[in-house]
Amino acid sequence: MDREIIGKVHEVMRGKGLTLAAAESCTGGMLGSMITSLPGASAFFKASVVAYSAEIKLGVLGVSAKTIESHGMVSEECAAEMARGVEKLTKADVAVAITGAAGPEPCGGREPGIAYIAVSSGKGVVSRGFKFTGDRESVKKQAAEKALHLVYETVSLWG
Amino acid sequence: MDREIIGKVHEVMRGKGLTLAAAESCTGGMLGSMITSLPGASAFFKASVVAYSAEIKLGVLGVSAKTIESHGMVSEECAAEMARGVEKLTKADVAVAITGAAGPEPCGGREPGIAYIAVSSGKGVVSRGFKFTGDRESVKKQAAEKALHLVYETVSLWG
Repeated sequence: MDREIIGKVHEVMRGKGLTLAAAESCTGGMLGSMITSLPGASAFFKASVVAYSAEIKLGVLGVSAKTIESHGMVSEECAAEMARGVEKLTKADVAVAITGAAGPEPCGGREPGIAYIAVSSGKGVVSRGFKFTGDRESVKKQAAEKALHLVYETVSLWG
Repeated sequence: MDREIIGKVHEVMRGKGLTLAAAESCTGGMLGSMITSLPGASAFFKASVVAYSAEIKLGVLGVSAKTIESHGMVSEECAAEMARGVEKLTKADVAVAITGAAGPEPCGGREPGIAYIAVSSGKGVVSRGFKFTGDRESVKKQAAEKALHLVYETVSLWG
């Protein structure tokens, strides 16, 4: 676990007085667990919704059935809608979402290691694709840490 | 991470064709991350709602304000309502909830290491208190593993 980036996320969120929420699929809660590994997380971290089934992505996060039909659950579009969904559900200032195929089997038609990460806020939403290598737990860890880097970079850029 | 109890939970849930959801507070997502550390979790694991703030416990999980006022967020009663809340939200057959003080500071008026874990289903809800020792990550890990044991024992007992 990369404590340095976790500390940086705590610092930037608390420094700017912003709240954070997450929506996770393939990471299964590891992102929330990393964020809460350091004391003080309750000052800014509101929630993570681990939406492991399509039904929860649709029913709780409000991802559209059309998006899943057209692009699949492991897609840039689904990650963006998951972020928007948890942002709305929790009224957090910033939201981050991860959807991917942790392996060893493909998931949502995507090869193991493929993940999409989105960061959203009142300023917009950005979603990007990644290809990680390694076993299931290693892919989860890399995806969660990449999400932390993206939150840190995005929020830092706001100046 | 205790892979043996994770494997047993996979086996019993899949064997009985039941679905599982979680609501987490102090563990921050570690329980969901443990469940999804083994392939095949998507066959039975629907979601985990990491409700790190009181607002999410009330607004998303439907814990009553009166329960939090009377018993605190770290209580047997709050754990039971969190389990009932996520069971209803996700329509899972079995739900498990954890609320506690991971430390190093007290939380919700409770000393570090105190945690309450509830398991609920159509058959009822059982909530129990525990006192773990160790640092923040160790308390989270012990609480998540204890929750897995309680799920396994409860579901196994159904015969």
